[in-house]
Amino acid sequence: MSQHMTPDEFREYGRQVVDWVADYMEGVEKLPVRSQVAPGDVRAALPAHPPERGEGFGGVLADLDRIIVPGLTHWQHPGFFAYYPSNASGPAILGDLLSSGLGVQGMLWATSPACTELETVVVDWLAELLGLPDHFRTDNVGGGVIQDSASSASLLAILAALRRTGDAAEQGLTGRHTLYVSTETHSSLAKSARIAGIGADNVRVVGVDPATLGMDPERLDRMLAEDIAAGATPVLVCATVGTTSTAAVDPVRAIGEICRRHGVWLHVDAAYAGVAAVCPELRGLNDGVAEYADSYATNPHKWLLTNFDCTVMWVADRAPLTGALAIHPEYLRNAATSSGAVVDYRDWQVSLGRRFRALKLWAVLRWYGAEGLRDHIHKGLEQAARLTAWITDDPDFELHEPQTLGLVCFRPLWAGGDEDAATMRLMEALNDSGALYLTHTRVAGRVVLRMALGGVRTEAEHVRAAWEAIRAEHARTVVGETAVVTGRSDLIT
Amino acid sequence: MSQHMTPDEFREYGRQVVDWVADYMEGVEKLPVRSQVAPGDVRAALPAHPPERGEGFGGVLADLDRIIVPGLTHWQHPGFFAYYPSNASGPAILGDLLSSGLGVQGMLWATSPACTELETVVVDWLAELLGLPDHFRTDNVGGGVIQDSASSASLLAILAALRRTGDAAEQGLTGRHTLYVSTETHSSLAKSARIAGIGADNVRVVGVDPATLGMDPERLDRMLAEDIAAGATPVLVCATVGTTSTAAVDPVRAIGEICRRHGVWLHVDAAYAGVAAVCPELRGLNDGVAEYADSYATNPHKWLLTNFDCTVMWVADRAPLTGALAIHPEYLRNAATSSGAVVDYRDWQVSLGRRFRALKLWAVLRWYGAEGLRDHIHKGLEQAARLTAWITDDPDFELHEPQTLGLVCFRPLWAGGDEDAATMRLMEALNDSGALYLTHTRVAGRVVLRMALGGVRTEAEHVRAAWEAIRAEHARTVVGETAVVTGRSDLIT
Repeated sequence: MSQHMTPDEFREYGRQVVDWVADYMEGVEKLPVRSQVAPGDVRAALPAHPPERGEGFGGVLADLDRIIVPGLTHWQHPGFFAYYPSNASGPAILGDLLSSGLGVQGMLWATSPACTELETVVVDWLAELLGLPDHFRTDNVGGGVIQDSASSASLLAILAALRRTGDAAEQGLTGRHTLYVSTETHSSLAKSARIAGIGADNVRVVGVDPATLGMDPERLDRMLAEDIAAGATPVLVCATVGTTSTAAVDPVRAIGEICRRHGVWLHVDAAYAGVAAVCPELRGLNDGVAEYADSYATNPHKWLLTNFDCTVMWVADRAPLTGALAIHPEYLRNAATSSGAVVDYRDWQVSLGRRFRALKLWAVLRWYGAEGLRDHIHKGLEQAARLTAWITDDPDFELHEPQTLGLVCFRPLWAGGDEDAATMRLMEALNDSGALYLTHTRVAGRVVLRMALGGVRTEAEHVRAAWEAIRAEHARTVVGETAVVTGRSDLIT
Repeated sequence: MSQHMTPDEFREYGRQVVDWVADYMEGVEKLPVRSQVAPGDVRAALPAHPPERGEGFGGVLADLDRIIVPGLTHWQHPGFFAYYPSNASGPAILGDLLSSGLGVQGMLWATSPACTELETVVVDWLAELLGLPDHFRTDNVGGGVIQDSASSASLLAILAALRRTGDAAEQGLTGRHTLYVSTETHSSLAKSARIAGIGADNVRVVGVDPATLGMDPERLDRMLAEDIAAGATPVLVCATVGTTSTAAVDPVRAIGEICRRHGVWLHVDAAYAGVAAVCPELRGLNDGVAEYADSYATNPHKWLLTNFDCTVMWVADRAPLTGALAIHPEYLRNAATSSGAVVDYRDWQVSLGRRFRALKLWAVLRWYGAEGLRDHIHKGLEQAARLTAWITDDPDFELHEPQTLGLVCFRPLWAGGDEDAATMRLMEALNDSGALYLTHTRVAGRVVLRMALGGVRTEAEHVRAAWEAIRAEHARTVVGETAVVTGRSDLIT
């Protein structure tokens, strides 16, 4: 017979796992942020073959400590400043546990009405909290939906936009279709263009204002006019609110006016920065969204305390999205769908099946309330402001401006030689230390370090300690640099 | 200040949630399987606006009982026989909880090496458990990866196949590309064809053998030859092992030989049935896979005790897949990726970000062992065999043959009139009762009921009770049918 875990065993092991996670929360600060293992180490520590006989849950917990944890880069560590924060909060973790425990699958309204309706409610709540327009609401012509990632949201925006330009979904793509991004747009747009059959070569890259790194609307306008004259079909323009590289903000309103004039879909990728609009004073970030955006995506799983995966995507009109994706095989037909009175989220996403992700966002919005969410954003902003001031005051470092929201980009200054290589060495040394974890990017061809604030466990003291470590490592390295200024540029890969 | 849940609060609320889930496991049997709410009921019971101030976690648990649970269709109910089972097991739930608690993001090897390496190990373990070929292994030229769903796996197979036929990812699709499915293939193939820009019109539907509902290889061969002669580029043939409608099995070997001859990618969608190959006596299901399949997908989240979402997809050669998807922006560059010594799973999927899903599959494989997994499959097969015998012996019902694995399809017989409408009314009455939940399909134009065994909590007594309920409702309905035989055909939507 199958040895299912009984409810009582679940209670017992469940408490052990809850305690394990609580211990992890308490102890993560003592672990090296970036994993120190080499390729293959974790695999080599695991058995080559699956077990023939079942075992208890204790072995999993033991191997978690022994093999898995040393192989992790700890995104919840207070010294994690890499990429963007990926907030995991208590209420989100428990909301996700409820989702796993219920084990329902919300592909159709009919397969669990509450899975769909709670989602429509929480995405409408979030639209209200962010000051997004009423037509984005699910009880209006548009609607919101939880996706796994902003990448998927971009792909879906492209598919909806293609739907509006013609019958590609039925007939397949014919002729040249073009997408518009800037040099700073997230790589998922190019990936989505590949996936959708548009092709990476038809992703038109618009230049940016060198001062702001925001897309240059005039160049966009010219490029659109030229491409249309040359017979291409422009599909979508992606404007970004908070780029991945430097949190730059595109001029959405100006871009939107151009999109409107040329009849092109405007997608706004606000993956990182969008959630900051829970603070009313930051809603200027979204200027132009209400008037011009056909679709908009932001990630509560970055800075809004909701575990990955939780991207919320809204469309101003849901018809082209569902028109691009809806297929109705017999085995999924049901009275509720036929009535037209319900939302079937399978028609809003790539996959058919879907988890009950609304529970974790619901738990977060209730636990924190609007007030707590604003407090969390403010805390990240304050830490960024403090760090920015230290950098500005330090003659050995140069701040990248404009500094935006919780991301601080800066360059250590060197006496000469291969400055980029020296900066990369500095970063690697810091990351190797285990005390903090930074990533880099390039601005105008030069390596710049990125430090993203906003982690759940990151307090002022951690930012201070990180800055001291950066300064100390820089000072230490400057002494040695003269001998090796041209070495190891291979680190910049 | 932000009111984060402290580790001690997490311990306290975590126990409450674990107990809530254990209580749910114990009590789910007493709830109506299919939700009885009407469209809008759940939404109307929830506040119109998000809370301004945060609250404890108690409100979430209270509203879960009061509002959410009545709005759920209980996929883990022992009387859930609809669609296919979506097994949620204790070890999988706890594996998922660990994933949420760790909150790491495995887009790159470097962003948490163990997240990638544990995944390569467990998918290789699963390949071994299912008797899949060595070249599918991640330590070989192919490799396995966890996707959210078989839909995504199909899309990715198409993208890899397109890569092999040319430079569509760069240049965009030009010319006519065609896909090959049968009348019984899952709708996600048509959806993926729309997404990939191939177009639904270019999905070529091959007829099936009316006896087995398996794809007719000769017709496939002719269609391919004709399309090639007409200048189309055939991209991919999808063979299914266990169709969604009736669990029919396509002749993979014969199809594979034809694919090889025409140089077309063979994707095997074994979403439901593939995991049954943990039982060596069922490996005949995969005959031809080792020799011919370029990609293969099966869902541990259906019948293999691992919570949704967990589809495992393997490719015989990973180069076309990663070639279709890899993009390397500066902010994701790192020494490990550049070394070529690691797997970066972002290049194996649509999205950039990814959860640590390997933990739940690892927990399941260790808890059950190969033995426990086989026992679980055997139990579903035995229940299906018993139900099949009852149907065969009952003159009021007709079994759909061949009956395959844990799915039993059958038709109640009627004295005349609109038989399909009568069958749908019977199903709706049963589903309205709350005691069990069935779905339907059509075979050769006629409505057939589907009863899928294999639920975690479904015991012999539940199958017996369901069968008695079906018989009783049929007997009751037959009496009333003469008056209404032509009514309510709208139920077949």
